[in-house]
Amino acid sequence: MRMSELSETCGVAVPTIKYYIREGLLPPGERTSATQASYDEAHVKRIRLIRALIDIGGLPVATAARVLAAVDDTDLPLSHVFGVAQLAISHDDLYAPVDDDSPGLATVTRAAADRGWQVTDNNPGRQGAARVLDAYAALGYSPLAGLSPAYLEAAELIARADLEAVAERTAIEDMAETVVVGTVLGDALVAALRRIAQEHVAVQLFAGVGGAGDE
Amino acid sequence: MRMSELSETCGVAVPTIKYYIREGLLPPGERTSATQASYDEAHVKRIRLIRALIDIGGLPVATAARVLAAVDDTDLPLSHVFGVAQLAISHDDLYAPVDDDSPGLATVTRAAADRGWQVTDNNPGRQGAARVLDAYAALGYSPLAGLSPAYLEAAELIARADLEAVAERTAIEDMAETVVVGTVLGDALVAALRRIAQEHVAVQLFAGVGGAGDE
Repeated sequence: MRMSELSETCGVAVPTIKYYIREGLLPPGERTSATQASYDEAHVKRIRLIRALIDIGGLPVATAARVLAAVDDTDLPLSHVFGVAQLAISHDDLYAPVDDDSPGLATVTRAAADRGWQVTDNNPGRQGAARVLDAYAALGYSPLAGLSPAYLEAAELIARADLEAVAERTAIEDMAETVVVGTVLGDALVAALRRIAQEHVAVQLFAGVGGAGDE
Repeated sequence: MRMSELSETCGVAVPTIKYYIREGLLPPGERTSATQASYDEAHVKRIRLIRALIDIGGLPVATAARVLAAVDDTDLPLSHVFGVAQLAISHDDLYAPVDDDSPGLATVTRAAADRGWQVTDNNPGRQGAARVLDAYAALGYSPLAGLSPAYLEAAELIARADLEAVAERTAIEDMAETVVVGTVLGDALVAALRRIAQEHVAVQLFAGVGGAGDE
């Protein structure tokens, strides 16, 4: 198909498509003449993946490009794709390394060990969780606030479902893409389902509890 | 304390503190002379809350201001604070309403009903989850991709822990703040713990599975 058709199929403007090609997110089409190129289903699929990373994952274009390069690099071990996706899809403020003497880091390390989780020092989640716990403490909450057994159990349930979905893919390239899609869309899905479940549980717990106007 | 001490205690620059006051995120200090004002522990705590919303939640300042206004409005029913926090802390791209005929919305609605979740039509999580499922479908994944029983169970575990933490607070103002803190920090914590748990599960499942170079 021509670029105008690709644009219509995906609902993405032609200048945006040209921008994705220029930035290396989308491979160029097959040249059919000096001024024309032809695009196929693989381009449609790739544009949808780009939009999912940007619109749902909230990734900047440069970050999406880095994640996609990892997906495309079939020489990269799957564990590395995982790491790139994990690091890339969340803002640095959260996942950047905390100080070695962060009390939150000690708490996370102990909680992970108690649960039997094997985790390397440079797992970005350790840093992110430590940062969150330190923020809770700074706000005057208990040092264990948030790190309830329920959260740990939920994280393991989710991770197991994630990895089983990856394991169902037979080709390495598909696995890498599944990791990226699942990491980005999965974070968003968990956050969204949490809001639905909160409303359900809140109605049960707080029926009638309101502000001064209600009492 | 004076503003310079407040700045030092919180590690936030004086111009930034002035900006928070101007934008309504932080109440002004008590005026002690024509050019001086005095700040107390409540200001320290509020600045830490602002930093948690911005640095960990990734909220823009204007959004943080809206969330804090809801926390400060003690006439607002708690359920409303919940809604404001839920809506505010996530980017509009994810939680904006989807089309009524979104296949993902039908799937989410059915899954929630099957689980016995009571949820109103305008719960932002319904829209966000629907958008994620539609994105999975556009990428060629099964319409149920991601919405595994494990995800639903995990969301309910998390929500119950969240609401129990809120219920422990006795004062309405504390409850409202706990909702906001827990929503923002909780999303980040779940995402971080998911990454830790994924590494643990991945090591078990994929030991030795790599790219072409490994095989």
